[in-house]
Amino acid sequence: MKKTLGILGAGQLARMLALAGHELGLKTICYDTDAATSAAAVSEVVRGQTDSDLLNWAVTCDLITYETENIALDRIDLLHQSAKPLFPSRRALELMQNRKLEKTFLRQLGLPTVDFVRVNNDHSLEQAITELGYPCILKTTTQGYDGKGQYRLQEQSDRTKLNILWDQEYILESWLSFEAECSLCSVRGQDGAIAHYSLTRNWHEDGILVRSEAPWREGERLEQKAQEMAERILTHLDYVGVLTLEFFVKAGNLWINEMAPRVHNSFHWTIEGAKTSQFSNHLRALLGYPLGSTAAIADTVLFNCIGRMPAIKTILSYPDVYYHDYEKTPRAGRKLGHLTYCDFEKQNNGQILEQLAIEISNVY
Amino acid sequence: MKKTLGILGAGQLARMLALAGHELGLKTICYDTDAATSAAAVSEVVRGQTDSDLLNWAVTCDLITYETENIALDRIDLLHQSAKPLFPSRRALELMQNRKLEKTFLRQLGLPTVDFVRVNNDHSLEQAITELGYPCILKTTTQGYDGKGQYRLQEQSDRTKLNILWDQEYILESWLSFEAECSLCSVRGQDGAIAHYSLTRNWHEDGILVRSEAPWREGERLEQKAQEMAERILTHLDYVGVLTLEFFVKAGNLWINEMAPRVHNSFHWTIEGAKTSQFSNHLRALLGYPLGSTAAIADTVLFNCIGRMPAIKTILSYPDVYYHDYEKTPRAGRKLGHLTYCDFEKQNNGQILEQLAIEISNVY
Repeated sequence: MKKTLGILGAGQLARMLALAGHELGLKTICYDTDAATSAAAVSEVVRGQTDSDLLNWAVTCDLITYETENIALDRIDLLHQSAKPLFPSRRALELMQNRKLEKTFLRQLGLPTVDFVRVNNDHSLEQAITELGYPCILKTTTQGYDGKGQYRLQEQSDRTKLNILWDQEYILESWLSFEAECSLCSVRGQDGAIAHYSLTRNWHEDGILVRSEAPWREGERLEQKAQEMAERILTHLDYVGVLTLEFFVKAGNLWINEMAPRVHNSFHWTIEGAKTSQFSNHLRALLGYPLGSTAAIADTVLFNCIGRMPAIKTILSYPDVYYHDYEKTPRAGRKLGHLTYCDFEKQNNGQILEQLAIEISNVY
Repeated sequence: MKKTLGILGAGQLARMLALAGHELGLKTICYDTDAATSAAAVSEVVRGQTDSDLLNWAVTCDLITYETENIALDRIDLLHQSAKPLFPSRRALELMQNRKLEKTFLRQLGLPTVDFVRVNNDHSLEQAITELGYPCILKTTTQGYDGKGQYRLQEQSDRTKLNILWDQEYILESWLSFEAECSLCSVRGQDGAIAHYSLTRNWHEDGILVRSEAPWREGERLEQKAQEMAERILTHLDYVGVLTLEFFVKAGNLWINEMAPRVHNSFHWTIEGAKTSQFSNHLRALLGYPLGSTAAIADTVLFNCIGRMPAIKTILSYPDVYYHDYEKTPRAGRKLGHLTYCDFEKQNNGQILEQLAIEISNVY
């Protein structure tokens, strides 16, 4: 019997999940409140607004996953009425959609995070700054992505300029002057089997991921440490599906910056650069199939295309470069697609990378 | 501007073309007279019967290709009214949908085929048998695929049993007792650039492809000869898109058995086993983009799933095996999907292949 997977959200992550699903003969139905959806060309998409829209959609699915952690928990509780299995679990989603719960959970597991203090008004912000010192960073506990809802406070003058309405919850975090950022994508099956992709180095601009490199050779000695952290989380939560951890690196140590209970932008290189993509492995885990090999088959560099797509004809003239267009309407600061350069022969062709970076010319 | 590619036919080849198109942000609209279509889950599909259905579909496309050569030429002439470019050309389609025209064309180019004689009644069949001798094989000139419309005549008793209505055109071919069958997939861009995939060895059962292996190491010394033949055809026809040649091999020589003006079952291994799949390269050629590398990145074995799909959970438990389900209704003798084993490390793992062959247990 063919299974039908429901995906909450119909953006590019849902799109790539649906594409991976088609290989396996899996049917996907996305649910979104928005009309313009990247997944629509490759998956059935149900548009809805009301509780009954959501429930009517859920009953047509055999199991449900989500492409974003920014889902109100009352939506998840409503879904619970449909009695359809949800992966990853409500508990994982609850923790990872809220920076305060997330960091508290990590601390409880003995895993390293930067220091943080909950703040909810100007007074508690002052206290927190006194406690943590400059530089620090104020973040909304929920709904942040691509650097949104974050305010970096370098010194007192930044604080003075800041005008927060306090209509939502915040945390203040110590600023770690990290040497690098990296991420780990792990997947856990229903049988408890765990596999990890290569540790991936990341670069952000304006809080948006712009470039990832995998496998990260210089980070190899951090790999085991990162995997142990992921395994502790996965096992503790009896997690099913893909989990991504983002790390800061400083002086040979790792701090977990955030967790995502889903496939992640920094592992889009796995589509061509690994034996099994993160999308395919997420589906395998959800469906109770054996996990596929996470081994890398090339040295890869991923570039995000932000605000505009580079000319496809030019990009495809570079050897071993793959072009992914999410079919989204261009807008400054919006992820519209990505390119992956796969160095299968490990020639370390820096010239192609330089040229690609120029071709892309992101628009923020 | 996003392009829309029209595909005549909505079977598994159209499905895999559409999937490759989505990566490039290409929109596809298939046209089929049939309701049950493998491509429907991944592409818009227009169902039509009449001339105006076909023309109405054509005007919504920017360019048109086809997944089968079995298209009546009057359909193509009708499409011509839409003024939409067709790739590969009408001329290529005309030649390759008719065994008599195909073999005559190859002979004119000085390329090797088995001897053949046109036959259209019992009398001319007798004459042809006298000329070519037993064993020989009677084939319809058009509409044959997967061994359909072919009658092997080993000796006089086979001839006696044969009851042909002569309501269509036939050719009688000499039977070549070949040592192996292989195929070459080539692609030519609009700028005249040509690329070839590795020569692939094929095995058929009951006229249906059951297994392909690529790159075919033992056939390496035939590769240049095969490529030269393909290049002569591609250049002569000013061909755009993927062309597949099927060969008989005997005593170190190649005979062209047939040509297909399209992506081909024996090159489905290119999805995971080559840097660029045949589907992606067909699209690149049609759209005027630079061709992608055809280099193999693994030693691959392709198995067709005929009449039934093996249990996905079992298949995915084998390492480095990829499962492709075309979402077609099972029927004896029908291609429902395929598996690809990619031996990335060239371990030559014969045990996995033996086990997979058992798991598949095709139904004819």
